[in-house]
Amino acid sequence: MKNIAILGSTGSIGVNALRVIQTNPDKYQVTALAAGKNIGLLYEQIKRFRPLAVAVKEETAAIELKGQMTQSSMPEVFFGTDGFIRLATMTDVDTLISAMAGSAGLLPTYSGIKAGKDIALANKETMVMAGPLVMAEARKRGVSILPIDSEHSAILQSLQGHPREDVRRVILTASGGPFRELSLEEMSKVTPEQALNHPNWDMGPKVSIDSSTMMNKGLEAIEAKWLFDLKMNQIGILIHTQSVVHSMVEYKDGSVICQMGVPDMIIPISFALSFPHHLKTHIPPLELEKVGVLNFKKPDMKRFKCLHLALKAADIGGSMPAVLNGANEIAVESFLKGSIGFLDIPDLIEKTMASHKHHPIDSIETVMAVDRWARDTARSKLEKMISKQLI
Amino acid sequence: MKNIAILGSTGSIGVNALRVIQTNPDKYQVTALAAGKNIGLLYEQIKRFRPLAVAVKEETAAIELKGQMTQSSMPEVFFGTDGFIRLATMTDVDTLISAMAGSAGLLPTYSGIKAGKDIALANKETMVMAGPLVMAEARKRGVSILPIDSEHSAILQSLQGHPREDVRRVILTASGGPFRELSLEEMSKVTPEQALNHPNWDMGPKVSIDSSTMMNKGLEAIEAKWLFDLKMNQIGILIHTQSVVHSMVEYKDGSVICQMGVPDMIIPISFALSFPHHLKTHIPPLELEKVGVLNFKKPDMKRFKCLHLALKAADIGGSMPAVLNGANEIAVESFLKGSIGFLDIPDLIEKTMASHKHHPIDSIETVMAVDRWARDTARSKLEKMISKQLI
Repeated sequence: MKNIAILGSTGSIGVNALRVIQTNPDKYQVTALAAGKNIGLLYEQIKRFRPLAVAVKEETAAIELKGQMTQSSMPEVFFGTDGFIRLATMTDVDTLISAMAGSAGLLPTYSGIKAGKDIALANKETMVMAGPLVMAEARKRGVSILPIDSEHSAILQSLQGHPREDVRRVILTASGGPFRELSLEEMSKVTPEQALNHPNWDMGPKVSIDSSTMMNKGLEAIEAKWLFDLKMNQIGILIHTQSVVHSMVEYKDGSVICQMGVPDMIIPISFALSFPHHLKTHIPPLELEKVGVLNFKKPDMKRFKCLHLALKAADIGGSMPAVLNGANEIAVESFLKGSIGFLDIPDLIEKTMASHKHHPIDSIETVMAVDRWARDTARSKLEKMISKQLI
Repeated sequence: MKNIAILGSTGSIGVNALRVIQTNPDKYQVTALAAGKNIGLLYEQIKRFRPLAVAVKEETAAIELKGQMTQSSMPEVFFGTDGFIRLATMTDVDTLISAMAGSAGLLPTYSGIKAGKDIALANKETMVMAGPLVMAEARKRGVSILPIDSEHSAILQSLQGHPREDVRRVILTASGGPFRELSLEEMSKVTPEQALNHPNWDMGPKVSIDSSTMMNKGLEAIEAKWLFDLKMNQIGILIHTQSVVHSMVEYKDGSVICQMGVPDMIIPISFALSFPHHLKTHIPPLELEKVGVLNFKKPDMKRFKCLHLALKAADIGGSMPAVLNGANEIAVESFLKGSIGFLDIPDLIEKTMASHKHHPIDSIETVMAVDRWARDTARSKLEKMISKQLI
C-alpha cells in the first residue's frame, strides 16, 4: 500500500490522480491533499478520501474549510507555503504527487525530495527553475522522480529496458496548440477564451495558455534535459497534431521507440504511480485504424517565439531558465486578465531575459531570488508596455 | 567476440548481416557460411570473411566451389541438409543466423538450438511449422531466439523493460504490399514481375510474393504467437503503407509502445546480434517531418485471402500451419514459374488445407512428414488446376 500526498488535488492532474487511486484501493491511499482556492471541491475530496492532513493557500480558506468540517472527519488543516511543505514532508507519505501550477510547486517539491519522498512530477517549474539542484538532491536521497505529463512519461517508457548509453536523442511531440495554423497577424488578435480552448487536452488555464504559445514545449524540453540527463542538442521537437504519439527516443542504430495512446492523463498518472507496471485502466484502447493518419512537421520558431526563447534560455543555462519561467508566469497572468495581447507574452519574456545577467544557481534560495527578480522586472516592464499602449 | 554462422549468407538478410559484421570487427567474426546456389557470391564472401567451414545445397556446387579455391584459404566444404546441420552445430559457433528461405531452414535451425546455439531468426518457417517444439527446446537448452525481421524485432524492442504480464496485445504492421489498392478483378491479372516489385523493402523472391499476397503477415502472426507466447486473439494486424512503424505492443493501461525506423534490415539484424544494445549504424535517422504522414487501416481479408487462411490455420493449430506453409511454398513456386495466376495461390492453399485432417505435432519428424504431405497434396491439386485451365 502506497501512501500518497497530492499537491494540487483540485486541478486537472489532481482530480485524475484521485480517480486512479479510487479505482486501485488495494494499492494506494490518500494521506494528504493540498489545493489553492477551490475549497468546495477540496471539501468533497476530504469526505471521500479521508486524508490525515490538508493544506490550502490562504489562512482565510483554511478557516473556512475548518468551519465546514464535522469533528469526526476532520484532518489537520495547514496553509501557505509552510503548510504545503508540511504535507510534502509528512512521515506517513511515500509518494508525493507534485501537481501545483507554476513556480509555487518548487519549494514543497524540493522539501519532499529532501525528506526522501518519491516524486510523481507534474509541476515542470520544479525542473525548469532548479533542475540541477533537484536532480542532485534526488540522487543523494535515493528517491525517484517519475514524470506525470504525457511527454516525459512517453520518454520514460521508451527508455525502459534500453541501455542509456545507446540513446542518440529524444523527440518531444507537440500538438501545436489551437493556433498552430495562424499567421502572426492573426495571432496578434487572439483572445484568452480562444487560447484556453485546447484541441486535444483538457488542462488548467496556465498550462493551456503555455500550450497555445508553445512555451509549454520549451519548458518540457528543459525538464527533459534534467530528468533524463540529456544535452539540449539531443532534444528535438516535432509538431504532431493528433497528440497520439506522446514522444520518442532515438537510438544509435536508427531505431526510434515511442509511446502512444489516447490523450488522457490517466495513462501517465497511473504509470508514474505503478512504475514499472502498467495498471489496468478504463481508457479505451488506441484504435489507429480510426485515427487513420498521424502527421509530423517541424515547429515554426518565428510564429512560436516562446518556444525559441525557452530553448535559448536553456542554452544559456544557470539562472536564465528561472527568469524565463518567472517572466512567463507574469505575462500569462496578464494576458488572461486581458491587460496584454497574445504576442506581448513573448515580447515581455524577451525583454526580461535581455535585462538579466545570468549566473550559476547554487541553492534553492538563489533560485527563489532569481524568480522574484524576474517577476518584479517583468511587472515593471509590463506597466511600461501597458502605459505605452494607452498613450 | 561472437562467432557467427550464417545459413543463407547470399540472400538479402545474409548479405546485410555480413555488412553488420564487417563494420563491427571487434564484436563479431564469421565462423561458417551456407548458401543455396549462388556460388559466385559465396566465393567472394569466403575470400573476404575466411570462415572455417561453408555449405551449399548440391554436391555439384560443393565440388565447383572447391575447384575455385586456393589451398591456403580453403574452408571445409559441406553440402545438403546434413551439411547445413553440420555448420549449425559446429563447436566454434556462438550464434546462428537462420536466414535460409522456406521450410529448408527448419532442420538446421532446430539442430542449432539442440546444440545450444543462440539463434538470430529470419526464417519464419521454423516457427510456423514447429513453433511449440522449437520454443520448448530453446527453453530446455537455455538459448535465446532473437528475431531478425523488422516486425518481430519491433515487438521485442517494445517489450523490453515492460512487465510481460501487463501486455494486452501486439499489433503487427503490414505495408500491404504492391497490390494493396487493387480489386480482386485486377489482382487476377497480376504478373510475377509486378509481385516481385515491393514498394518499401528489398527482399528475396519468395518473401516478396508472400508480401504481395499478405501471406507473409499471416506467417508473422503465427511466428509472433510462439516467439512471444501470445494467444492468436492477442495479435492484431494493421495496414501501414509507409513501413515506418514496424510493429507495436499495447499494454493494460492503454499505452502503446512501438518501434519505428527507416525500412532497412540492418536495424533488426544489428539488434538481434547486439541485443539488448543498439549498435551504431550508418542508417540515416528517421525524419518524421520528411515522412510527414503515417497511415493506418484494417486489412481487407476478402482481397487478401492468404492472410485469412494463415490466421485460420493458426486458430486450428497442430499440424495445420505446416500444411498452410507447405502448400504456400508450392503455390508461390508455381506462380513464379507462370503456371498459375495470383489468385490461384490462396485457392491452392485452401484446397490443400481442406483435405488435411489436423493433428498435434509431437516431433520434428512429424512436422517434416506433414510438410511432405502438404507439398505432395498441393502438387497433385495443382496439376488438376492446370489441366482444367488447359481444357
